[in-house]
Amino acid sequence: MSHFKEQLNEEQRAEVMRQMAIYSQGVQEMIPTEELENKLAKSILENKPLKIKLGLDPSAPDVHLGHTVVLNKMRQFQENGHIIQLIIGDFTGKIGDPTGKSIARKQLTDEEVKHNAKTYFEQFAKVIDMDKVVLHYNSKWLSKLNFEEIIQLSGKITVARLLERDDFEERIAFGKPISLHEFFYPLMQGYDSVVLECDIELGGTDQHFNILMGRHFQEKFGKEKQVALLMPLLEGLDGVEKMSKSKKNYIGIDESPQEMYGKSMSIPDELMDKYFELITDFSPEQIRDIKEQMKTGVLHPRDAKMLLSKTIVRMYHGIEEANKAEQHFISVFQKGDIPKEIPVISWQGQREMSIIDFLVELQLFTSKSEARRMIENRGVKLNGKTVEDTKFQVNIIDELIVQVGKRKFVKIKI
Amino acid sequence: MSHFKEQLNEEQRAEVMRQMAIYSQGVQEMIPTEELENKLAKSILENKPLKIKLGLDPSAPDVHLGHTVVLNKMRQFQENGHIIQLIIGDFTGKIGDPTGKSIARKQLTDEEVKHNAKTYFEQFAKVIDMDKVVLHYNSKWLSKLNFEEIIQLSGKITVARLLERDDFEERIAFGKPISLHEFFYPLMQGYDSVVLECDIELGGTDQHFNILMGRHFQEKFGKEKQVALLMPLLEGLDGVEKMSKSKKNYIGIDESPQEMYGKSMSIPDELMDKYFELITDFSPEQIRDIKEQMKTGVLHPRDAKMLLSKTIVRMYHGIEEANKAEQHFISVFQKGDIPKEIPVISWQGQREMSIIDFLVELQLFTSKSEARRMIENRGVKLNGKTVEDTKFQVNIIDELIVQVGKRKFVKIKI
Repeated sequence: MSHFKEQLNEEQRAEVMRQMAIYSQGVQEMIPTEELENKLAKSILENKPLKIKLGLDPSAPDVHLGHTVVLNKMRQFQENGHIIQLIIGDFTGKIGDPTGKSIARKQLTDEEVKHNAKTYFEQFAKVIDMDKVVLHYNSKWLSKLNFEEIIQLSGKITVARLLERDDFEERIAFGKPISLHEFFYPLMQGYDSVVLECDIELGGTDQHFNILMGRHFQEKFGKEKQVALLMPLLEGLDGVEKMSKSKKNYIGIDESPQEMYGKSMSIPDELMDKYFELITDFSPEQIRDIKEQMKTGVLHPRDAKMLLSKTIVRMYHGIEEANKAEQHFISVFQKGDIPKEIPVISWQGQREMSIIDFLVELQLFTSKSEARRMIENRGVKLNGKTVEDTKFQVNIIDELIVQVGKRKFVKIKI
Repeated sequence: MSHFKEQLNEEQRAEVMRQMAIYSQGVQEMIPTEELENKLAKSILENKPLKIKLGLDPSAPDVHLGHTVVLNKMRQFQENGHIIQLIIGDFTGKIGDPTGKSIARKQLTDEEVKHNAKTYFEQFAKVIDMDKVVLHYNSKWLSKLNFEEIIQLSGKITVARLLERDDFEERIAFGKPISLHEFFYPLMQGYDSVVLECDIELGGTDQHFNILMGRHFQEKFGKEKQVALLMPLLEGLDGVEKMSKSKKNYIGIDESPQEMYGKSMSIPDELMDKYFELITDFSPEQIRDIKEQMKTGVLHPRDAKMLLSKTIVRMYHGIEEANKAEQHFISVFQKGDIPKEIPVISWQGQREMSIIDFLVELQLFTSKSEARRMIENRGVKLNGKTVEDTKFQVNIIDELIVQVGKRKFVKIKI
């Protein structure tokens, strides 16, 4: 179908390239890129939107920023007029997605599935326009398949191909059981794409195998193959593990503005680029600029993180709440903060002495009476804790931070 | 359920043992023996026949003696009042049984399945009383299973367990594809036993895995487990390969009396015991006597083979046809036969010479004129071919058989 691309005029070609730049932003893998270009070309020539699929496992409906990586990508397609097909795996949910799990998952009841799907929608409405979304429940077609049709479907895939899936391969290697019914999950996910004739399927990199099943079965059923658009998995606040509820390293999109802002400020500096790229609504140009400014030092890491935090709150609570959350953060945390750069004093004296002698020795005061007065005024802190007693005996340890008044800090090095 | 056996009186216990002796005859594997004893005990105590299952793949309906190994075992159960459940795999036939096949088998149409099943029945009627057989088509329950039920069924078995099947294991090892739909075959065969609550399933040793699936699924569904009764595979006329139509080493039960008798006479001596045991209708005692007589030489191998051949013809064409076939064989083949024991003459002379000189040299005649006269009377044969010319030059080769008159033979050894 490469002929579609060749039929474009210059303006149309530019439009394809513009959209490609947006959709490529932050993507881990696009299989294959040329097919997406051609699908966009066809869409423009025939004035027909593309159908973008996202399958949802209704077993874990608490949406956090990790999920919004994919939702933001959907939003981009939606903003350019394409159609989002959300598929609620109400049928597949009865099996549970074994992806990345080392044991077979508990099957959900019909009621649990319905309730969880509803919870999803309410949260998704914060990122995408749910009025323009086409909703599907895969039970509509899957529950009607009879044994003969399932056999026909199963005849289009080999056991070896299914065993290639990372988690299956691993479980076989470690002698952990794979229940046969788990093989149906990728089959059903693939068959959904056949039924809905999807152009693109979105998912995390952990969905690599399942999304390629869609291409496999579409081809076997004589349909145009979908493009797989795989997004990176977002590390959580710890900067190491994938963001997830169970790891408690997540920011839920239902959290309060203050919580959201505070948690965002605790993201490790190294992850800033990735967060800007994957979970904000900035354009590719804006993101490029921010990254450039951070790199050159024009934008201080703290200021960048404040921009990120404010943006996240704005996206889920609006600009007013975002401003308030920022003000709250500044007043509570930042003003009482210990500065990053503190003069270090190398200590070679006694390891225990009276607080007054210690302060004079450090040359923070020129006389003992000056030091005593400051302690009495509650103006001396050791590691953030106010010294209450002028006769206090200090245990002098490495990294001890001594604060005098609001601004003066020294750190002990032993 | 071992308590059933303990409740038997002496007479009943003897009856269990009598039946066990019959059913054990020629069996390769009985899994497990104690359970069959207890099932028989229960059957006697409750005056309730056992249900004996035989599943039939309707893809190859030409019945030969290889199939009758299992059919004869069924007949024994039937003669003792038990109920035979024949299951026509009209549904499974749509998949084809991958047992022992290295590639996935072609799927059959509904029409082919029905026609083949009918062909089976006509042939089976020669061995078992079809009026007393309970016929089932597994499409009755399998075609009604929906996806959810299939998922529930699949959840009761692991992929690793399925991959243990010899032919699957082998195909994985050699990188040959296993189509996922082939996994359903053992599942369906096992599920058939659940539905029909079978007590015993019969099959060849190549059905070991599939028949144990019945036990597996019966247990998973909370039913009493069936006993697996596995019969040896019968080697064909070549004495090496399993009897099968494709190997052309078979005796079909639809063949004419003469063909049947003649083919039976070509069975290698080493297989006689097995044939008597597996495909005749002799009692365990009769078979034991025949084996004993063969072993001690009371029964000459040729006579034993004639008894076997006549028995086979009698079973499928009646005693009259069996007698005729025997007479025909004696008149046509046996009278002109070359005996098994021929004196060997070690030849060190010329490798080519005139037939008359050769015969005198072998001391088959005392004079050349005697030899000439016999040749003129067409009484000399070389490797079964009559020598027509007294001037014939013999090419003397190893294993050359020289025949003079009806009875005199020598074999040349070089």
